[in-house]
Amino acid sequence: MYTLEQLTQIVKTEMNRHEYVEEPYSLFEPITYILQNGGKMIRPLLTLMAYNIYRDDIEKALKPAIGIEIFHNYTLLHDDVMDDASLRRGRPTVHKKWNMNVAILSGDAAAITAYKHIEYCEDRYLRRAIDGFNQVAMDVCKGQQYDMEFETRNDVTEEEYLRMIYLKTAVLIAGSLRHGALIAGAPEEEYNALYDFGGSLGLLFQLQDDYLDVYGDVSEFGKNIGGDILENKKTYLLIKALETANPQDRAELQQWLSRTSFDPTEKIRAVTAIYNRVGIPGIAQQKIDYYLNKSREVFEKIKAPEDRKRILLEMIDFIDNRKK
Amino acid sequence: MYTLEQLTQIVKTEMNRHEYVEEPYSLFEPITYILQNGGKMIRPLLTLMAYNIYRDDIEKALKPAIGIEIFHNYTLLHDDVMDDASLRRGRPTVHKKWNMNVAILSGDAAAITAYKHIEYCEDRYLRRAIDGFNQVAMDVCKGQQYDMEFETRNDVTEEEYLRMIYLKTAVLIAGSLRHGALIAGAPEEEYNALYDFGGSLGLLFQLQDDYLDVYGDVSEFGKNIGGDILENKKTYLLIKALETANPQDRAELQQWLSRTSFDPTEKIRAVTAIYNRVGIPGIAQQKIDYYLNKSREVFEKIKAPEDRKRILLEMIDFIDNRKK
Repeated sequence: MYTLEQLTQIVKTEMNRHEYVEEPYSLFEPITYILQNGGKMIRPLLTLMAYNIYRDDIEKALKPAIGIEIFHNYTLLHDDVMDDASLRRGRPTVHKKWNMNVAILSGDAAAITAYKHIEYCEDRYLRRAIDGFNQVAMDVCKGQQYDMEFETRNDVTEEEYLRMIYLKTAVLIAGSLRHGALIAGAPEEEYNALYDFGGSLGLLFQLQDDYLDVYGDVSEFGKNIGGDILENKKTYLLIKALETANPQDRAELQQWLSRTSFDPTEKIRAVTAIYNRVGIPGIAQQKIDYYLNKSREVFEKIKAPEDRKRILLEMIDFIDNRKK
Repeated sequence: MYTLEQLTQIVKTEMNRHEYVEEPYSLFEPITYILQNGGKMIRPLLTLMAYNIYRDDIEKALKPAIGIEIFHNYTLLHDDVMDDASLRRGRPTVHKKWNMNVAILSGDAAAITAYKHIEYCEDRYLRRAIDGFNQVAMDVCKGQQYDMEFETRNDVTEEEYLRMIYLKTAVLIAGSLRHGALIAGAPEEEYNALYDFGGSLGLLFQLQDDYLDVYGDVSEFGKNIGGDILENKKTYLLIKALETANPQDRAELQQWLSRTSFDPTEKIRAVTAIYNRVGIPGIAQQKIDYYLNKSREVFEKIKAPEDRKRILLEMIDFIDNRKK
């Protein structure tokens, strides 16, 4: 069994080993750039973890694990174009560093590169590997479409929001685990249990992300606090605030949402104050706890020996404790 | 054996049967839109033809054939964003009819839809089907990257140009034939011979496209004559003209390339006049004839019975005679 630290080191080494440089360099340079972004690499880690529950030769799962990370970064690359985001993990986004055309086409090439990696598995698993990946990839697209549509709506319900982040974020986390289980030859029920576990973990992850954007420790979170507030991002916090605030607070909140010119610090302070009055920190924490417990519950349905599956519990704690 | 007319009808019926509408509709509507564009559907026809050389149950090749057409239309969709083209076969492009974000994301979803279709084949062919498709898809991206880079260069050589159109256009035509042969269980040599045949046919197709853009019959070609000239598109005609013109003609040509304001009709007339003086129609026709002959030569290397493979000869004539 590998530890989380060992797996992290293995994934990092593999990621750095890859220089996606063929001709034309201009097409592949941005792919190398986005893969060296110092991300948490949670998805490939989950693939290796799931594989490692059933088998020890994890080098056989490394290529598809990296493929999932490439796919994840490709979706971020195109999302950044669509959101016209300037920075990604503190570095210029591809369409800012190069241009929009480079970002679109390199993204397309990255998606194909992901497919090339995903197919590393025994022939008997290939069809399900591709099928599963197609389903996950399409769900991520659907999630992004909903996310964009929500931007122009002020009546997004909690249920709609949870469905959107399930598609956009949780499904890929679920798929990362399922893929590892599949190519390790895990029994059918395990394969499904790990997918459910990942779905729950993914929702936990995204809700915590929403929370930390406002209530995280600026020195540890690694992003600027309040970024979502400045962008009027429809987060769990904002949706619940719009839903539960009294008329006066809701009116003030909506005023902040519609202002086109404002002092950033003032907007963050004011919106956070409304959140606090409405009791959002408690509501959000309750939801986060719900998915924490649910993740632990679904974890119990994974029938592998305790010592082999324990690393997934560590992953819950890892996400629970993360500050960046 | 099916005739070209029968196959065309079968592909058309299948294309129209598909309404790619799941929720969110906004994601899938543009995919349906681009697939109903009245194109020639050459690629799916080639897949069915190649399959039909070896097997009669062509309904089994229909899904992957459509998958290749979906992939082709996805590349056009993203290319149109990158070129900021307004029209595609006389209809508004997706980013003009909807917006850029819809075009990027629907394109991404179309690519995944293509992969979903491609995998329809017997398990024993699946790995090569996916491998082959990945290679072709990546080559198309490389071709598009070169095409964009050539836009800002005035020293593109004939060799570079032929390599670019090989990657951007010919490889997918080659891959369409190869895919049909693969999933029909054709012998290895046949599989390769059909790929070579398609490569040659693809080059023929693109060179003829370049030629018809200037010398086609406006009422039959279905596009406006001179579109490439107005866009300063690096076609075979322009590249050869820059290469072989005398200093005076080259200077006049370069002046037209650098002008930002001009009367469209005048520019087309003037550039065509230079082409005529330089002898471009003859040079281009010679190259087209070269690939016509080469296609017929490679055709002979396909070892299938004459009556089964004859339809591919018809395809050469179909392309040779096309005016639109």
